[in-house]
Amino acid sequence: MTARRQPVLGILGGGQLARMLALAAAPLGVKTLVVDSAADACAGQIAPLVVADWTDYDALEHFAREVDVVTFDFENVPAETAHWLAKRVDVFPAPRALAVAQDRLAEKTLFRECGLLTPEFKAVDTRDDLDRALAVVGAPAILKTRRLGYDGKGQFRIKTLADADAAWAALGSQAQAHGLILEAFVPFDRELSVIAVRSRDGDFRTWPLTQNWHTDGVLSLSLAPASDITALQARATGLARTLAEKLSYVGVFALELFVKDGELLGNEMAPRVHNSGHWTIEGALTSQFENHVRAVLGLPLGDTSARGLSAMFNWIGELPDAAPVLEAIDAHWHDYGKQPRAGRKVGHATVCAPDAGRLVERLTGIAHALGRDQQADPAVDKLRETR
Amino acid sequence: MTARRQPVLGILGGGQLARMLALAAAPLGVKTLVVDSAADACAGQIAPLVVADWTDYDALEHFAREVDVVTFDFENVPAETAHWLAKRVDVFPAPRALAVAQDRLAEKTLFRECGLLTPEFKAVDTRDDLDRALAVVGAPAILKTRRLGYDGKGQFRIKTLADADAAWAALGSQAQAHGLILEAFVPFDRELSVIAVRSRDGDFRTWPLTQNWHTDGVLSLSLAPASDITALQARATGLARTLAEKLSYVGVFALELFVKDGELLGNEMAPRVHNSGHWTIEGALTSQFENHVRAVLGLPLGDTSARGLSAMFNWIGELPDAAPVLEAIDAHWHDYGKQPRAGRKVGHATVCAPDAGRLVERLTGIAHALGRDQQADPAVDKLRETR
Repeated sequence: MTARRQPVLGILGGGQLARMLALAAAPLGVKTLVVDSAADACAGQIAPLVVADWTDYDALEHFAREVDVVTFDFENVPAETAHWLAKRVDVFPAPRALAVAQDRLAEKTLFRECGLLTPEFKAVDTRDDLDRALAVVGAPAILKTRRLGYDGKGQFRIKTLADADAAWAALGSQAQAHGLILEAFVPFDRELSVIAVRSRDGDFRTWPLTQNWHTDGVLSLSLAPASDITALQARATGLARTLAEKLSYVGVFALELFVKDGELLGNEMAPRVHNSGHWTIEGALTSQFENHVRAVLGLPLGDTSARGLSAMFNWIGELPDAAPVLEAIDAHWHDYGKQPRAGRKVGHATVCAPDAGRLVERLTGIAHALGRDQQADPAVDKLRETR
Repeated sequence: MTARRQPVLGILGGGQLARMLALAAAPLGVKTLVVDSAADACAGQIAPLVVADWTDYDALEHFAREVDVVTFDFENVPAETAHWLAKRVDVFPAPRALAVAQDRLAEKTLFRECGLLTPEFKAVDTRDDLDRALAVVGAPAILKTRRLGYDGKGQFRIKTLADADAAWAALGSQAQAHGLILEAFVPFDRELSVIAVRSRDGDFRTWPLTQNWHTDGVLSLSLAPASDITALQARATGLARTLAEKLSYVGVFALELFVKDGELLGNEMAPRVHNSGHWTIEGALTSQFENHVRAVLGLPLGDTSARGLSAMFNWIGELPDAAPVLEAIDAHWHDYGKQPRAGRKVGHATVCAPDAGRLVERLTGIAHALGRDQQADPAVDKLRETR
């Protein structure tokens, strides 16, 4: 019996994604070390935390020496930081994949190269560009920053051409630093995401497609597997695989899709574990967090089948009463250990069931007890439709 | 939105049980603080660790101020330490329940008071007591220390009356400090355990009975739910409930049982989460770890139903190759982050399946790849018998 050294996974960003990655890494015998600029980053409750910002190269040098592999909780880590680290230690996903996913223009261009349709889009660098783009894309449309946007931040909805000045007033100042992009607003039928994972040796898997509902640009509710996906699943998996292979991607990523008239359109890619995949913790044979850890550490991937049906409530701002979830059958509470704050993701709950009937029962029971019927309704309606 | 303070669970002992308790506590928003005398205690990889021994009252005073509730990873925490802490903070299970479970004589006496048969036993304090006890109990029998024994430690098997001197030579020196007990050796048909949980307000639940196989006194393999338990389950649950209520027990405990001619006999009680309940992490709707945290914190208990069938391999001494488990469907790896050492519990793997046929397939596949067919065989035989 020889002494052993456990592998150490470094995570850039110490939010709930890092926290859930650390919780998934532990049973695999993998230690984690987290970097975040906030001393109270919630992953620090589970893993040692280096308090440093992305340009503190002394701290990052120390961090790089302590870890075997680096990954991300947060996709907007500056590309320079990722590149700097990649010279010292394995970084997955690689900085190039991160850079593409950080830039809406590069991302959508790649989608099209992979055969994935997208809503019409145009790059916008100046006020004149915006007019030219609107002439092509039309209204309604959404003006977005090319970089550093997430959860509906850095976006302006243009309902008619008359909104162009207001849109420029809101985002024009960011045109030079981050670039802007005008995207056609697509009145989609539904929003799906596919969570995918690719290993260091090219093994590729997807979880069943998830249907998502947003409120004010933030995910409110997910249902997995989404209904009526037989044809879409194969197509989404194929597109995600092409994308992953083009990027030599390693780890988990999410591809957000719109469905319009039975056709898939690419919305965006998140180069990390994703909120719409949280249901996989209890609802799949292997969670997105465990498979991400496995992928970046070079371990075999686990089976991504769903156990039954799952729905996930996102808790935004502050946590509701936990009791109705704790008391329900096969319902699972996730408190991220954060302070409440408007718009902040502070936790989620996943409700599982072997069939649609029982999922409706459990979902409506919990939602009713919490006075949150409205949050559950879209999934309940969908489940009733397809029962 | 008001600021919140997360509850803190203090855990005495920092081994794998504390580690898995901390992993279960996190999603509930519960922080953990662990006390162990070893600076490299494996729970310290997940939770802050106070390095102190059980009589370091300065450290314990500080610990007591930091935590809301105290519980145990280790049942042999000195009764004085538990009592001292209980004057300062809520301790669950209460020191009285711990004291009974720490003493094989008190424990077996309580079993009988609860209507649970036990193998014949007699207290032994002197060499003469041993002869008198052997005259009543007969041979074969097992001489055990009354306190501080676990995993077959502090035990001597007496095959014939002629072994009395050897038994006394082995354990006689401990008679004064810990007391001894002579127990009849029962040639049982099988070994079962029931894992039970009782909440602060008296809610009581059990998981399905588990069948266990030991090697050299250490758990090697568990299968859950055990087969043919329809009649035994109700009886075991009833006995566990009586026991829990007599002790005003709060938290999870295990009751180890022998089955002999269809009758249950009480072997011992473990006043904590238990190795034979590790399968509940993936194999039940709520794990023993989560329900223990819920119980001691005063939260509602979760459903204890099994998802399907589960088998658990214990890894003793050192870990085998992880790959065959990671590659199998619905198989789950648990590395405790410990250094290898002969006889040490360093990890486990749980293999789940919706039916006996598929569990046999997965178990034999993994066991064969690891060259450990022998470890899996008892469960495989049992599953084939009852298919």
